[in-house]
Amino acid sequence: MDPRPIGIFDSGVGGLTVLAHVRAALPGEDLIYLGDTARVPYGSRGADTIRRYARNVVAHLVDQGCKAIVVACNTASAWAIDDLRARFSVPIIDVIEPVARAVAQSGARSVAVLATRGTVSSGAYSRALQRLAPATRIEAIACPLFVPLAEEGLTDGAIPRSVAELYLTPAAAGGAWDAVILGCTHYPLLSRTIGQVVEAAARAPVPLHDSGRHTARELVRVLTEFDLANDSNPSGSLRIMVTDDPAALGSIAGRFLGHDPGPIEHVDIGTAAT
Amino acid sequence: MDPRPIGIFDSGVGGLTVLAHVRAALPGEDLIYLGDTARVPYGSRGADTIRRYARNVVAHLVDQGCKAIVVACNTASAWAIDDLRARFSVPIIDVIEPVARAVAQSGARSVAVLATRGTVSSGAYSRALQRLAPATRIEAIACPLFVPLAEEGLTDGAIPRSVAELYLTPAAAGGAWDAVILGCTHYPLLSRTIGQVVEAAARAPVPLHDSGRHTARELVRVLTEFDLANDSNPSGSLRIMVTDDPAALGSIAGRFLGHDPGPIEHVDIGTAAT
Repeated sequence: MDPRPIGIFDSGVGGLTVLAHVRAALPGEDLIYLGDTARVPYGSRGADTIRRYARNVVAHLVDQGCKAIVVACNTASAWAIDDLRARFSVPIIDVIEPVARAVAQSGARSVAVLATRGTVSSGAYSRALQRLAPATRIEAIACPLFVPLAEEGLTDGAIPRSVAELYLTPAAAGGAWDAVILGCTHYPLLSRTIGQVVEAAARAPVPLHDSGRHTARELVRVLTEFDLANDSNPSGSLRIMVTDDPAALGSIAGRFLGHDPGPIEHVDIGTAAT
Repeated sequence: MDPRPIGIFDSGVGGLTVLAHVRAALPGEDLIYLGDTARVPYGSRGADTIRRYARNVVAHLVDQGCKAIVVACNTASAWAIDDLRARFSVPIIDVIEPVARAVAQSGARSVAVLATRGTVSSGAYSRALQRLAPATRIEAIACPLFVPLAEEGLTDGAIPRSVAELYLTPAAAGGAWDAVILGCTHYPLLSRTIGQVVEAAARAPVPLHDSGRHTARELVRVLTEFDLANDSNPSGSLRIMVTDDPAALGSIAGRFLGHDPGPIEHVDIGTAAT
């Protein structure tokens, strides 16, 4: 049994949807969430910049004594994961590989990956799926307006439905998808709307796979394999830290976490140097 | 006659709508646009961070020999303008004061200011209007989804219209506005939709005031007053620089400028230090 905390890293607050899955799967673990809000969004940055930012954040979590790191950020998972694994000795779990493995194992033959433009252009989901299930037909669809809709809490009703139809209806109607991956930590907030639009276009329900849920399962597996779990603790602690002013987050954090996050701390990890 | 260039600064590419007005008003001037895309968006940052970033960008433009600076960024205009004017000796024109003065001079008695959440909460437009025309009734309305809609080019049709109705219809119906200020550099791209929605709710056309147009006029006035204009040049040059990878901008820059921006340069102003 290992009482050290688990670190969860995202560029912003979207990773709180992953944190919620981790907390449900591992209620006894102490968790430290670090959102790099001073430098969000990572998706529009260059690859070197993303790797530098990710190293900086993960180094801070490792300095805090974290026994494992969840990279709850699709951009950092796509561009920085190999670099992070080469530099840090604790297990590092990403958000792409676990859901790709689950979908490949499900036997899906035609998969839609919904993600930000940056994640789509990284090709990371397509590469992971192709490696695990080479015959899979993969359609990666950029849905850039889903992030601001989720952040604004506009997740149900006519506007998000029209936006989802704009992105998904033509592809879903011709796609005969048997799985849809929500390849952005913000998208689970829109899962009901996305599910309805996909079902209407495909004329059948299609399972939506939330990266965060599969990432939490992978974390459980890794902690067990390396004997790192904290199984004596009935209820773990939660610290949420951000690199910019926490007040600027308003009600957004609670929306992603699913409940009141309590006090959010500010942490200086050197982003203020410029 | 002064051949030195004019510097135009924004956190991202939205300020290109201001640049377009400056170019139309002053076709002979050499212009240098600097978009701090490595640190965009400024709107969610703390005030000290915004001032530090703004100083850093303006120092770079002054080092390039700029004779005047346009702060084509509402967030920096709201939080950093006094600090910039105290630190740099060239004239510095903001995007808030010129449109506020024009609206005050128009005799409008009930004014709607449409802006980002950060600009609304800064209170900068309300303060400027109240100082210039104390009896004016001011309604500041945050329209956070207008920025991603403009960046995605989704400016006409059912989706932006529904979003504009969500933000504007209840207020416009009861507001009896006689002027609307587009208090964000992105919003002019949505001016047709905004105008239609406001007119439908108010049952009369209401003039929309574009900050960028009034800012360009103020720049003309300042150059004349300080004898800084370049009136011998038939056609000025244009350099567009950004602090992150220009390739990440895709087609967005052209959308804001109104035409192909040509090659966009990358510039290192020290944002890569962290």
